[in-house]
Amino acid sequence: MEYSNSSNTEQPQTCLEITMEVHRVVPPPHKSTIHKLKTTLKETFFPDDPLRQFKGQPTGKKWILAAQYIFPILQWGPHYSLGLFKSDIVAGLTIASLAIPQGISYAKLANLPPIVGLYSSFVPPLVYAVLGSSRDLAVGPVSIASLILGSMLRQEVSPVSDPVLFLQLAFTTTFFAGLFQASLGFLRLGFIIDFLSKATLIGFMAGAAIIVSLQQLKSLLGITHFTTKMGLVPVLSSVFHNTEEWSWQTILMGFCFLVFLLVARHVSMKRPKLFWVSAGAPLVSVILSTLLVFAFKAQHHGISIIGKLQEGLNPPSWNMLQFRGSHLGLSIKTGLVTGIISLTEGIAVGRTFAALKNYKVDGNKEMMAIGLMNMVGSSTSCYITTGAFSRSAVNHNAGAKSAVSNIVMSITVMVTLLFLMPLFQYTPNVVLGAIIVSAVVGLIDIPAACQIWKIDKFDFIVMLCAFFGVIFISVQDGLAMAVGMSIFKILLQITRPKTVMLGNIPGTDIFRDLHHYKESMKIPGFLILSIEAPINFANSTYLNERWIEEYEAEDHKKQSSLQFVVLVMSAVSAIDTSGVSIFKELKKTVEKKGAELVLVNPLGEVMEKLQKSDEAGDFMRPDCLFLTVGEAVATLTATIKSQVSNHVV
Amino acid sequence: MEYSNSSNTEQPQTCLEITMEVHRVVPPPHKSTIHKLKTTLKETFFPDDPLRQFKGQPTGKKWILAAQYIFPILQWGPHYSLGLFKSDIVAGLTIASLAIPQGISYAKLANLPPIVGLYSSFVPPLVYAVLGSSRDLAVGPVSIASLILGSMLRQEVSPVSDPVLFLQLAFTTTFFAGLFQASLGFLRLGFIIDFLSKATLIGFMAGAAIIVSLQQLKSLLGITHFTTKMGLVPVLSSVFHNTEEWSWQTILMGFCFLVFLLVARHVSMKRPKLFWVSAGAPLVSVILSTLLVFAFKAQHHGISIIGKLQEGLNPPSWNMLQFRGSHLGLSIKTGLVTGIISLTEGIAVGRTFAALKNYKVDGNKEMMAIGLMNMVGSSTSCYITTGAFSRSAVNHNAGAKSAVSNIVMSITVMVTLLFLMPLFQYTPNVVLGAIIVSAVVGLIDIPAACQIWKIDKFDFIVMLCAFFGVIFISVQDGLAMAVGMSIFKILLQITRPKTVMLGNIPGTDIFRDLHHYKESMKIPGFLILSIEAPINFANSTYLNERWIEEYEAEDHKKQSSLQFVVLVMSAVSAIDTSGVSIFKELKKTVEKKGAELVLVNPLGEVMEKLQKSDEAGDFMRPDCLFLTVGEAVATLTATIKSQVSNHVV
Repeated sequence: MEYSNSSNTEQPQTCLEITMEVHRVVPPPHKSTIHKLKTTLKETFFPDDPLRQFKGQPTGKKWILAAQYIFPILQWGPHYSLGLFKSDIVAGLTIASLAIPQGISYAKLANLPPIVGLYSSFVPPLVYAVLGSSRDLAVGPVSIASLILGSMLRQEVSPVSDPVLFLQLAFTTTFFAGLFQASLGFLRLGFIIDFLSKATLIGFMAGAAIIVSLQQLKSLLGITHFTTKMGLVPVLSSVFHNTEEWSWQTILMGFCFLVFLLVARHVSMKRPKLFWVSAGAPLVSVILSTLLVFAFKAQHHGISIIGKLQEGLNPPSWNMLQFRGSHLGLSIKTGLVTGIISLTEGIAVGRTFAALKNYKVDGNKEMMAIGLMNMVGSSTSCYITTGAFSRSAVNHNAGAKSAVSNIVMSITVMVTLLFLMPLFQYTPNVVLGAIIVSAVVGLIDIPAACQIWKIDKFDFIVMLCAFFGVIFISVQDGLAMAVGMSIFKILLQITRPKTVMLGNIPGTDIFRDLHHYKESMKIPGFLILSIEAPINFANSTYLNERWIEEYEAEDHKKQSSLQFVVLVMSAVSAIDTSGVSIFKELKKTVEKKGAELVLVNPLGEVMEKLQKSDEAGDFMRPDCLFLTVGEAVATLTATIKSQVSNHVV
Repeated sequence: MEYSNSSNTEQPQTCLEITMEVHRVVPPPHKSTIHKLKTTLKETFFPDDPLRQFKGQPTGKKWILAAQYIFPILQWGPHYSLGLFKSDIVAGLTIASLAIPQGISYAKLANLPPIVGLYSSFVPPLVYAVLGSSRDLAVGPVSIASLILGSMLRQEVSPVSDPVLFLQLAFTTTFFAGLFQASLGFLRLGFIIDFLSKATLIGFMAGAAIIVSLQQLKSLLGITHFTTKMGLVPVLSSVFHNTEEWSWQTILMGFCFLVFLLVARHVSMKRPKLFWVSAGAPLVSVILSTLLVFAFKAQHHGISIIGKLQEGLNPPSWNMLQFRGSHLGLSIKTGLVTGIISLTEGIAVGRTFAALKNYKVDGNKEMMAIGLMNMVGSSTSCYITTGAFSRSAVNHNAGAKSAVSNIVMSITVMVTLLFLMPLFQYTPNVVLGAIIVSAVVGLIDIPAACQIWKIDKFDFIVMLCAFFGVIFISVQDGLAMAVGMSIFKILLQITRPKTVMLGNIPGTDIFRDLHHYKESMKIPGFLILSIEAPINFANSTYLNERWIEEYEAEDHKKQSSLQFVVLVMSAVSAIDTSGVSIFKELKKTVEKKGAELVLVNPLGEVMEKLQKSDEAGDFMRPDCLFLTVGEAVATLTATIKSQVSNHVV
């Protein structure tokens, strides 16, 4: 064994003949730096090993597999049958009836012309049907991304006084969002969205739902002079300073339709088979309210209507993308934020339904699909789209079997765009407001919040932080605060890792936490510490001071008896240069106190680094290195006894 | 046992009579939320338990202890003896001979009048002697903090065209640096400086040393029109575009003194007993060069001199602190950066020498001392000071016994300020440049860099990043980049934690990494995975996909035999809500594949959270929960066998 050299030259204090059979710690198999780098890169970027299926295939087959990887439609398309198509038609028509009113509403939420919402429900679903791998995702504009896009762009450009520039910026933002999403997927950096923890998302979504609902007070109350700000305080003050603008006709109509929509939603939630009740309710509301307005000429009685909408399919918009000028920074920033938010929603929705139906969605692949969809969208007059949670749930419940339901929806929207636009002329804005409110109410997930409170108090604080940050400061700051706090929590955990004092469970060679397993007992003369974190620059100082402290607390009671400090390294998965130097210092400190430092079960990487830093071979002396605590204690106890008996002889 | 309820009501597939003696996993002792919060706060902010010494003392004694805690001089003062004083006088005079020329030089580095450097070597050491707990720290201005202060302030204010404002900002910055340092100590946030890892510091210091040396080319070559920028490229281009300004007299003089200083430094490094050679060399250089200039009237032959310096002690400067106006942000930012950098140096130096002499320096206490010292300094015409590495080493080698050596140095500087200032009038700037260069050369630590390369390649990249960032971009950006990369590395480690497949070492019940211990063997029907990280939002998705993947890789080979997925949780020190929900999903996935999920040795906190989230009690069923892998495998194997034999019967 390569460590035995040093113990031959320098006979250590306790290294007498060890007769007991112990299992030696062996050095890990040698790996070159290149090999290690390769492993690390693979683990970081290709944990899912997407090229595995290509291994050992003939070249022709490889091309087919590659084409199928890029265009999943080639994978399921050939097996598509009439039976599946029937299911998809029903699902597609159902989500179209939801997508049309929601598209119009969400475009208004983003301060864009209502027609852009319909454009965005036509092209992106077609692109996704070709590229996407989820069978349940219903693609289109979503509330939160629309809200963020609208509010961030409005900070610099007014959608009222400069609508063309605003539209240009919206398309440019969509392009950058798509580019960013596709790059994340292509560079296999999909794990970045994992940094939005569940707690952050729940708080954020609830806050955003409230902000979105507050914005709807404008249409629900019929106010004409409304604040352009988003926060709770300015909106409420604007609402109550304009009470003279409230229109009772609007309020009455809004209230009735809101109640209708919420009841429909409630029915569908109680009985998932009645999914069509909530799915159809928005379209029914739009038709009903439009007829009412048309019949009573209500637009002359204080009820504001959408007005004339242009007929025809998406005009090209690549000439509207702005890659220079003073607003470029704003477009990029907004693109980043909306891109990551919509990606999170899309991936989460895709994964949820994939898990339900037991198929797999490749996160990085999905990111590329969603990103390309937005890049194509940005040049065909669409703003940012993703997989929407509510519509995907309806799609799933309606029995969608494949992405064909998206194609059906898309064709329905196309027909609407071509022929049915004049019908929406008299649709009242108040109904669109009610549709938005009833859609976002579902984003407030109180049971999940309670569950978080029960499990983890710090996560709950992160959640509140996201929630109140979004409500009182701004959507993006609230999100940033919550992400910052989540990361800070992890860093704090690393800065203050646990070290646990172990004791022996009587009658066994098992060693466990003294505080947890009350029957476990200290071994006289031993201080056995288990370190439960990687050791790095952020915690090495703390760990060093901690060991000495535990040590002194121990020392205090039994002045002279401490002979061995046993460090259990099973949980130390990594170490860096600061950590290594702390080990050296620790060894000195322990030896100054007349005791010896013993390591138990250091893992491969840690062992290698300690060994490299340690020319004298002190850490790797076989009498200071054991595979289990039990063996370490047994061997060292035997050593002490033989020393004592030698002394007596 | 409280978990047995559920296993009674619902007889699980494998829960037959278990006759073998196994050690049950017990729930951790109950702790209230308040108690947990208290423990967490204590661990985060009071890991060193500074109030421990107060426990059980009478009130009078407590007051004395408190006074001694705040003013350590009360602790060692009463025992101070003449013998100690003799050592301190020698050490104090030695560091004074170093501090006077360095003070003048560093003040010039910070674009401040030379006299401010002497002022800063007078008041702060006195304050530190009363408040500080290190016996070896020699306090005064230091090169890197001076450089950063000068370069950051010069970005907005010119020290040439607006010297008064520049001085005001320097004092204000010092005040904020002190306030920040004292607050960090008072709020017990000292661990923040731990985020500057060893690798970052080595790269940063080497880069800063080069930047500082480059700045000295101005005095060393006698150039009058020098760039105001710091980077390598602008400085070198400025040097080589002004070759006509080079003065051969200056270059000759500078070269001679630089060689003298470097030789002196080399001698002292080879023989630590000859510390006084390098300690005295700067003063000797100053005296010699001043005499030479005076004798040959060299100031008229192209050698620039300091010029007239004002006599007298520090004037008060609290009226110069600027707490409003357009430059407040700059002062605060510069204060933060210089504060944290000088704190890092001071604490590191204090700890190094405390470890050598085996006494303890309380980090948070030291931060308060250094912070208060800078706050007092800022109102007595001093700029930012800390414990300087080179001077402290000289102090230590000269035999300093206590902070009295700082007092001696301070008095020597006072005498200089009162009576000896005219002597410096003819001191040439070129000698000051040579003194700085010879002082900062020691900051380039090539052996340490090699060691880092050997141990950890990523740390080496962080180091290079800090180094080149400082040289080519800017001092503060280089530092920020390196800190960012270090934190990113930790986050990456968390995002991609290790999961290790375990196998049995034949003839034992020890289970270890299959890749590391080649003799270990897989157990048929079992997939045993050890998770080596806390599970949280950043890695739960990865872990989930990883498990399934390992699982499928296993499944692929032995289609039907996999019966148990055993997760060894010994190293999972924490879990959050995202982690908990991943466990639930995992259980479902495993069960879908017809196998069972078994947990081994979950730690207290993890167990508690799994239990809370899990109304059905599935995770806590005693037949799915074991204390060691060996027992789990033995028990479950016995269960399978008895099932099979039952079937046969």
